[in-house]
Amino acid sequence: MDTMNEDFRIDILENLEEFLHNNDDEKIREFIENVHPADIAEVLVDLEDDDQNRLFTLLPWDMATDVLEDINSETFSRLVRALPIEQKIVVLDMMSSDDMVDKLGELSELRQQEIMAFLNDEDADDVKALLVYDEDTAGGIMTKDYISVFQDTTCYEAIEILREEAPEAETIYYVFVTDHIERLVGVISLRELIVSKPGQPIEEIMNPNVISVNVNDDQEEVARVVSKYDLLAIPVVDDENTLIGIITVDDVIDVIEEEATEDILKFVGSSELEDYDDEGLGTKIITSVRSRLPWLIITVFGGMLSATVISGFQDALSTNATLALFMPLLAGMGGNVGTQSSTLTVRNIATGNIETGDVMKTLIHEIFVGMLVGLACSLLVAAIVFFMQDGNYLMCLIVGVAMWANMVTAATIGTLVPLTFKRIGIDPAVASAPFITTTIDITGLSIYFTLATLMITTLGN
Amino acid sequence: MDTMNEDFRIDILENLEEFLHNNDDEKIREFIENVHPADIAEVLVDLEDDDQNRLFTLLPWDMATDVLEDINSETFSRLVRALPIEQKIVVLDMMSSDDMVDKLGELSELRQQEIMAFLNDEDADDVKALLVYDEDTAGGIMTKDYISVFQDTTCYEAIEILREEAPEAETIYYVFVTDHIERLVGVISLRELIVSKPGQPIEEIMNPNVISVNVNDDQEEVARVVSKYDLLAIPVVDDENTLIGIITVDDVIDVIEEEATEDILKFVGSSELEDYDDEGLGTKIITSVRSRLPWLIITVFGGMLSATVISGFQDALSTNATLALFMPLLAGMGGNVGTQSSTLTVRNIATGNIETGDVMKTLIHEIFVGMLVGLACSLLVAAIVFFMQDGNYLMCLIVGVAMWANMVTAATIGTLVPLTFKRIGIDPAVASAPFITTTIDITGLSIYFTLATLMITTLGN
Repeated sequence: MDTMNEDFRIDILENLEEFLHNNDDEKIREFIENVHPADIAEVLVDLEDDDQNRLFTLLPWDMATDVLEDINSETFSRLVRALPIEQKIVVLDMMSSDDMVDKLGELSELRQQEIMAFLNDEDADDVKALLVYDEDTAGGIMTKDYISVFQDTTCYEAIEILREEAPEAETIYYVFVTDHIERLVGVISLRELIVSKPGQPIEEIMNPNVISVNVNDDQEEVARVVSKYDLLAIPVVDDENTLIGIITVDDVIDVIEEEATEDILKFVGSSELEDYDDEGLGTKIITSVRSRLPWLIITVFGGMLSATVISGFQDALSTNATLALFMPLLAGMGGNVGTQSSTLTVRNIATGNIETGDVMKTLIHEIFVGMLVGLACSLLVAAIVFFMQDGNYLMCLIVGVAMWANMVTAATIGTLVPLTFKRIGIDPAVASAPFITTTIDITGLSIYFTLATLMITTLGN
Repeated sequence: MDTMNEDFRIDILENLEEFLHNNDDEKIREFIENVHPADIAEVLVDLEDDDQNRLFTLLPWDMATDVLEDINSETFSRLVRALPIEQKIVVLDMMSSDDMVDKLGELSELRQQEIMAFLNDEDADDVKALLVYDEDTAGGIMTKDYISVFQDTTCYEAIEILREEAPEAETIYYVFVTDHIERLVGVISLRELIVSKPGQPIEEIMNPNVISVNVNDDQEEVARVVSKYDLLAIPVVDDENTLIGIITVDDVIDVIEEEATEDILKFVGSSELEDYDDEGLGTKIITSVRSRLPWLIITVFGGMLSATVISGFQDALSTNATLALFMPLLAGMGGNVGTQSSTLTVRNIATGNIETGDVMKTLIHEIFVGMLVGLACSLLVAAIVFFMQDGNYLMCLIVGVAMWANMVTAATIGTLVPLTFKRIGIDPAVASAPFITTTIDITGLSIYFTLATLMITTLGN
């Protein structure tokens, strides 16, 4: 089986629909045996609700568990309800605690309790402990299903523990080592374990420099650490260094993808990725409107400020209506240069490329770039204006100089605003954009009209 | 050791600088024993070149290998040259083939050969084979250091092979299974291997539905598959299904981070992330100018088109100069709505949220959202204009209606352009932005002035 492309997906879907409508349970069981649970989860949501429930009860139990881990909370809650009690208990028991918490966290308290009632005591305790943490922190994405041993365990005993706990554990490729009051003291990989002498105590061969994260660390920090040190899993500790969970690399990948999407959406002032599939059209539209409106309202006030600035130069405009022609050009260029500078600055802050002390370096870089791209564009514009306006050298001088000044200012503002926001502790990705566009529009218009008034008075007619 | 923050980094750096200047090699050796290679790599680049070389020759050989894998090509080439021959051969031999190829790929042919001369025949062959592939494909990021067994191997034999090859392999957590002409027929995890009966042939317990990628697949596709199926490594095959390499999850994380950055930068028309550290200021500025100028030039022509449109309405403008006041407001709002729609559409295309057939659904959604946010903003703007213009109901009607129409059009254009580009096979992330801004500016201005002319003629004075 290769990767799942569109044709392959439709193929699975059509087969399943046919079997379901023929009530051919045997065929379905046979067919799904060779389909990956992640693919089942993907096509499942395209079926009618009743068909989803029927298909789900036909899945082998381990596959049902994998599918539950891969779907959204609403579907999760509905499918679990559709299961017979016996099956429900087994499938929920096999689910890993972090995935369970992800689903439950998005459900109402009533729905949560409905499901928790079917968990065994140990799992229920784990889930309750995990539900406490903010979903964007290490605690919110960690799982309780890890393997740990005491430091005086021998390698042979450790491998035995591993064999026993393997079916429940999220990863068996790292064994975490603690002292007798559960404080994290080391780590050993399965790789090291299988090449070691059976009788040797773990503490002699473990790596004591174990890299861990605090339970309250932001998930973005977790991703940074896992990515930097190329880990398959990272232990999570509390303030006393007690081992309380682990985070595996597959969850870290989800975090990185989620954060990348968030970063992109922040730039356009929309707070969440809107998925067109999940809910009814009406609900989705309201969600979209809510997430996008705030920034638009800010832009309205920015635009009104621009209008006020222009009205201050209304005399210049009425005597020289040609000035209005180049307002969109100037605004567009300023906006672009500013966005380029701010995006690169924000991204360099996010990826850690800008360290303390690099602020001046960044600013100088961006200003020089602004001066050079500004020069290239201004010369081009001046030439075009010269031809468009039949050799009106004054207009071509005004537009050219204003454009250059505007672009340099825009690059400066685009760099300074995110750097300043970062310094005073505001997320530059969220706050920069509306602030920058408005400021650049206003400074750009002021520069343009001031220059125009001055030049027309001194050089004109 | 917890995660490396700024203080910790400076601490390591200052210690190392002190020891290096005191020529205290013993202290250095002792100190670096407890530092992670990834941290050494990070502080190394902040040292003077001579200090870098000295420090590097003092590293234990396995640490030197890890550091080489983590640094940029230029530093790699310089550090390798600084090593004594014997050490050079060992360290290069231990490097994994994918990292070696990443470095060599960015060096001149002369430098490549300088380093290749110290590789043993097998490694040199691997590297030569890998250098052929485009760096953005599965072939470009795969490694040759994987473990595979024939399908008739027993579990006991497989574990023995694993023990033997473990030091060289990139991952030992999956063993890939081939037939006797090296075609990929299955996979078995170390987890399954250690709980199986020693005498059992692999083919009886392996998973025959092994998920693989083709050597020519795009690295983004590789990341999508690994992320979807939560894999720790994925095998790479050629068109005959022959196993030729593997890609591990840590490299996939790098791909995801790289692609996310690229996606963000594409939105602002800058083609690469500019790192302020690597080269001299002059070179960096030229690189930045080159990558940003193309989009700015396109914007110049867009702005000129706008100027042409406005000049068509110059009569309306000279009789009613107030119209100019609200041009930045209208352009700003249209631009924002258009960018929101296009960003969400582009991101939904990239993350696979928009499947075939969802095009109509997406469009309807965005148009409705545009109508609603447009309504809210238009009413607000109309009210403000009413007060600003001392109850000029005509102006407030013109601006309000034009704004609403403009925002709905902007949402439509912002959605249609990326969808269309995708349909005809152009990367929507790159091409959409300049095209959309210009189109929205021009349609917005046309709507505004046409409406104004009509309304003033029919309703005015």
